Amino acid sequence: MKEHPGREIERKFLIRKLPGGLTSCPSNEISQGYLVSLDDGTQVRLRKSGQQYSLTFKRGAGRVREEREVGLTAGQFDALWPATAGKRLVKTRYEIPLGELVVEIDVYHERHEGLIVAEVEFDDEESARNFQPPDWLGDDVSGDPRYSNQLLAS
Amino acid sequence: MKEHPGREIERKFLIRKLPGGLTSCPSNEISQGYLVSLDDGTQVRLRKSGQQYSLTFKRGAGRVREEREVGLTAGQFDALWPATAGKRLVKTRYEIPLGELVVEIDVYHERHEGLIVAEVEFDDEESARNFQPPDWLGDDVSGDPRYSNQLLAS
Repeated sequence: MKEHPGREIERKFLIRKLPGGLTSCPSNEISQGYLVSLDDGTQVRLRKSGQQYSLTFKRGAGRVREEREVGLTAGQFDALWPATAGKRLVKTRYEIPLGELVVEIDVYHERHEGLIVAEVEFDDEESARNFQPPDWLGDDVSGDPRYSNQLLAS
Repeated sequence: MKEHPGREIERKFLIRKLPGGLTSCPSNEISQGYLVSLDDGTQVRLRKSGQQYSLTFKRGAGRVREEREVGLTAGQFDALWPATAGKRLVKTRYEIPLGELVVEIDVYHERHEGLIVAEVEFDDEESARNFQPPDWLGDDVSGDPRYSNQLLAS
């Protein structure tokens, strides 16, 4: 259970080396596109992950952002998806358990083939601050616009 | 049936005088709020009209805009609505039949109490251009930002 529903607290890292057993971890093909994607971090995102559809609103930038997400039906998704043309990306997301946490490793495809970024989501800011990344994670790039999905989709 | 699904073609008018029988026409109390509302006309709008909930994406300004709308469940609406705080408005919408067309008369409440604006939606641009407004409609204010819901909600 999140401490603050409506907020997202996460850190983003480069990968120093891929963890062993990656391909046996749960993974999903994710297609996402943006109805809106602004420099200040405001975004309205459509996502298809496996057979799950969602719409997510985010505001703010960096480690702590406002985030509100709802599941969509395939019909709702299909009606809105055309408006994301030109602002889309495709990635495979692997979920790596790490103690109580989960590290999400995103391997990008198409224009960004080969780019790999890891994200860790936290319940509160203190846990985010105190997190000791394992040695296979590289530089902390939280808030670095070069690795924002918004930029990668534009 | 619209000629171009995904497009909205409409004209907006001030009211010279209220048409007779207004209060016997169908009407709905509408609450709407904006997740995103930009100067260039891009918006993501949540709306509750009676017991109907919707999310609408619009892009562009003036008579012809891209528009995509999906119905929402009350649960989806409630999950996203908090993010529209500070960007909301309430109005009563009356639907006045006019030949094949419908004139929507919006009577605003709260901060904009007393403001009245009429909208007519068309199937194609030619019909919009050729439309002869009845004498109870006043100035054409299509595209006038002072009467955009986006501005009224901010």
